Amino acid sequence: MEKLNKGLKVIHELSAATPWPASVTPMSAESDGTAGFWPEGFSSGAVDAGIKYSNRKDLMLLSADGPCSAAAVFTTNLCCAAPVELSRYHLQLSSGSMRALVCNSGNANAATGARGMDDARAMAAAVASELAIKPEEVVVASTGVIGQLLPMEKVLNGIKALPSSLQRDSALDAARAIMTTDTFPKFFSLKVQLSVGSVRLSGMAKGSGMICPNMATMLAFLATDASVDPTLLQKALHDANRSSFNAITVDGDTSTNDMAAILASGTAPEILADSQDYTLFCEALEALMTFLAKLIVIDGEGATKLVEIIVEGAADDRDAELAARTIAQSSLVKTAIHGEDANWGRVVAAAGRSGASFNQNELELFFNDLIILKPGFIADFSEEAAAEIMAKNSYSITLRLGRGTGYAKVWGCDLSKEYVDINGSYRS
Amino acid sequence: MEKLNKGLKVIHELSAATPWPASVTPMSAESDGTAGFWPEGFSSGAVDAGIKYSNRKDLMLLSADGPCSAAAVFTTNLCCAAPVELSRYHLQLSSGSMRALVCNSGNANAATGARGMDDARAMAAAVASELAIKPEEVVVASTGVIGQLLPMEKVLNGIKALPSSLQRDSALDAARAIMTTDTFPKFFSLKVQLSVGSVRLSGMAKGSGMICPNMATMLAFLATDASVDPTLLQKALHDANRSSFNAITVDGDTSTNDMAAILASGTAPEILADSQDYTLFCEALEALMTFLAKLIVIDGEGATKLVEIIVEGAADDRDAELAARTIAQSSLVKTAIHGEDANWGRVVAAAGRSGASFNQNELELFFNDLIILKPGFIADFSEEAAAEIMAKNSYSITLRLGRGTGYAKVWGCDLSKEYVDINGSYRS
Repeated sequence: MEKLNKGLKVIHELSAATPWPASVTPMSAESDGTAGFWPEGFSSGAVDAGIKYSNRKDLMLLSADGPCSAAAVFTTNLCCAAPVELSRYHLQLSSGSMRALVCNSGNANAATGARGMDDARAMAAAVASELAIKPEEVVVASTGVIGQLLPMEKVLNGIKALPSSLQRDSALDAARAIMTTDTFPKFFSLKVQLSVGSVRLSGMAKGSGMICPNMATMLAFLATDASVDPTLLQKALHDANRSSFNAITVDGDTSTNDMAAILASGTAPEILADSQDYTLFCEALEALMTFLAKLIVIDGEGATKLVEIIVEGAADDRDAELAARTIAQSSLVKTAIHGEDANWGRVVAAAGRSGASFNQNELELFFNDLIILKPGFIADFSEEAAAEIMAKNSYSITLRLGRGTGYAKVWGCDLSKEYVDINGSYRS
Repeated sequence: MEKLNKGLKVIHELSAATPWPASVTPMSAESDGTAGFWPEGFSSGAVDAGIKYSNRKDLMLLSADGPCSAAAVFTTNLCCAAPVELSRYHLQLSSGSMRALVCNSGNANAATGARGMDDARAMAAAVASELAIKPEEVVVASTGVIGQLLPMEKVLNGIKALPSSLQRDSALDAARAIMTTDTFPKFFSLKVQLSVGSVRLSGMAKGSGMICPNMATMLAFLATDASVDPTLLQKALHDANRSSFNAITVDGDTSTNDMAAILASGTAPEILADSQDYTLFCEALEALMTFLAKLIVIDGEGATKLVEIIVEGAADDRDAELAARTIAQSSLVKTAIHGEDANWGRVVAAAGRSGASFNQNELELFFNDLIILKPGFIADFSEEAAAEIMAKNSYSITLRLGRGTGYAKVWGCDLSKEYVDINGSYRS
C-alpha cells in the first residue's frame, strides 16, 4: 500500500508537470476516485496464478465487450519471445480485429523454442474458450525471466479464474499484475475533446530493466472507446511510439518481449483519416504514451533521476538520435548523474564516440538553462548553479552540435548501486 | 607497496596462464629481478608534478638514446584530446621518427579548445629543449579528467626535473605515473628469438575506466630494440591492435585520449618485410599487447572478473564482433556475471539486439566447455556445474550462431557497485 501510494504520488506530480495538449484532460486513477477506470467497452481482471511471485497477482486479462480495432508494435530483437511471434501472427490473421489481451509476469516465455510457441498458443486458446471468442482475437504477452518454460498448469488454472474477476474500474489491479521489478503500477487515462464528442484513452505499462525499446517498446497496453480503422490506428500507434517508448532507455538492453498494443472499442464516434479529430487523437495518444514512457524511466531499476537528453543542431535527425542515445546510455554519464557531479566532459566524450558528425570546437552544452560549454570548448559556469540543477529529481541536458537542424529527445536515468544489486541475482 | 605486490601477483598469474608463442620468453619485472627493464636504448623517468594527485608521481618521460622508428594508433572519438591531435601531427611531420614520449596523469587535456593545443605544444617543446631534440620527435599523451586546463607551471617544472630521473630499469615507476583509477602499474617484457638474434619488446599500459577502444586504445607505450622500418612498424602495430586493445571493453565508453605508441631503437638487427622474423615479431607484439589489454580489463574500475566472449559461426567477422561486443557491454550480462548468476537468457537477448543475423533456434551457448543451450532453445545443464564456472575469476562464454565462419573474441568484465562508487565522484 505504501508503494502504491508512492506510485500515485509520482504519477500525480508528473501529470502536474506535463504540458498536456489543449484538447486533453488528464484523469489519473486518483482523480477518478477509482482504482483505475477503463474506457467504455473494456474491463480487466487479475489473479494470483503462482507463476513465480508469491502472494501477488501475476496474470491479467483485458477484455472488450465486442470486436475492437487493434494495432501493435513489437520488439526488433531477433530472439523475440513466443508471445511476440504469436501476437504478431494473430493481428495479421484477424486483420487487426481483436477482443482480448492476456499477460503474465514472472516468466517471459522467451528463448523457449517450439514448446514456448505451443504454450503461447495454449494461453490464447484458453482465453478464447473462456470468453467464447476466436484464439486469433487474443493478444498474448509475457514478461519475466528468459529461458524458462511456463508452468502451464498454473497458467491455465489462472486463465479459468480470470473472467469472474473482470471489472471496468480495476485497471490498477491489472497494471500491478504485469509488474516485474517495477515498484509501482503504471496506469493513466485521458479524456480527449474532439469535434464528434469526447473519447477516452487509457493505458498501462511496465518496464524497469532491459529497457531500450527499438521500433517497439516494453509492455504497454492501451484502450480507447474511439472508433478508428485498424490501419489508421496502426499508423497512429507507430508514429506516437517513435517519440515516446522508443525514446527511453534504462540500461541499453532491448528486451525480447517488448510490445505496445492498443484496442479501440468504437463505442464513441468514428475518427476519420486526415481529419482534425485524427490529429487531436494522435496528439493525445503521443502524450499518453510519452507519459507512460517517463513513468517507466522514473521507475527504472535503481533509478533516482529522470534526465531529458536533447540534441539540437545535428546534421540530421538520425545523427541527433545517435548522439542523444549514446549520451543517455553511457555508464560514465549515468554514474556522474547519480553522483550529482557536473562532469560535462563525459557528455561530450559520449557524443564524440556516437558516430554523429560535428566539430568539437562548435559544441554548446546546457544543463536546464545553464550554459556549461560555449563554442571553442570554453567552460565557464558556476559549479554551485550546476550542482543545484543536478540535485533535482529531473532536469534536461541539451547539446548543440552546430551542424544543421537535426533534433532528438530521449529520456534516461542514472546508474546506481541498486541496479547492480537487483540484476546480480534476478533469476533467484 | 601492498597494491604493487598485488599487481605483480596478478601479472605473474596471467603470464603463467598465457599460451605464449614458441619464440617468446616472458620477462616480468619480477622475474627480471628489477623494477622493470626497458630494451637497449631506452630509459624512463617519473616525477611528482602535483597536477592532481598528492604524493604520487604523475608525469613520465620515456626517452630513446637515438632516433627511433615510431608508430601509433589513436582514438576515433571526435572529441579527441589535444595531445592526440598533436602526436598524430608529429608522427606525420617526422615521417615516423621519434625520440621521446611524455605523459601526464590526472588531467586529460581534452575538451580544452585552442588553449589545450597550446599546452600540448608547450609540453613537447619543453621536453625537446631538455633533451636537445626536435619538438616533432616527441609524442605527448595525457589522461585524467576531461574539460579542465592543465596547470602548466606545474607541468613545465615537472618536465625540467624529468631528465635527471631517467634510468633503464625504472619502467614500473613510469607505469605507475600514468595510472588514474588503475590499482596497479602494468608493465611487461618479452624476449623474442629471431633468426637474426634475440630482440626485446616491452610495454606499459593504463586503463581502468572509459574503456572501449575503437580503432585505437587506452594509453599503451611500447618499446623494442628491434630495427623495423616505420611503415612496417605501423602495420605491425595496427594489426596487433585489432585483436588486443580493440577487443576489450570495461564500460563501453571510448575515451577521448586513447593512444598506443611504439618506438623501435634499432640497436638490434633489422627485421625485413615478408620475412619469417617479421611474422615472429608480429606474433610477439600481438601477444604482449593482448597481455596488457587483459591486464586493463582485470584492473577495470570495480571489476572482479575477466570474461572472454567468443562468437563463432557468424555470417562474417563483422557480425561476430557486433554480437560479441554487445554481449560484453550489456549491463544485464555484466551484472549477472558479477552476481554469478547463470542467466544465459541475457546473453542470447544481447546477441538478438546486436544487429548480427541468425535464427534464434540455431543458437548454441557454452560457459567454458559446459554446454548451456542446444539448438532449438533446449537448455539442459547442471546449475551446479554452471555456478562452479561462474565462481571463477576468469572464464569464457562462447555463442555459436550457426550461420557461417565469422569469428570474434573480446574480453570484458563484470559491473559492480564499486564502479558506481568510483564514477559518481570522479572529478572531486
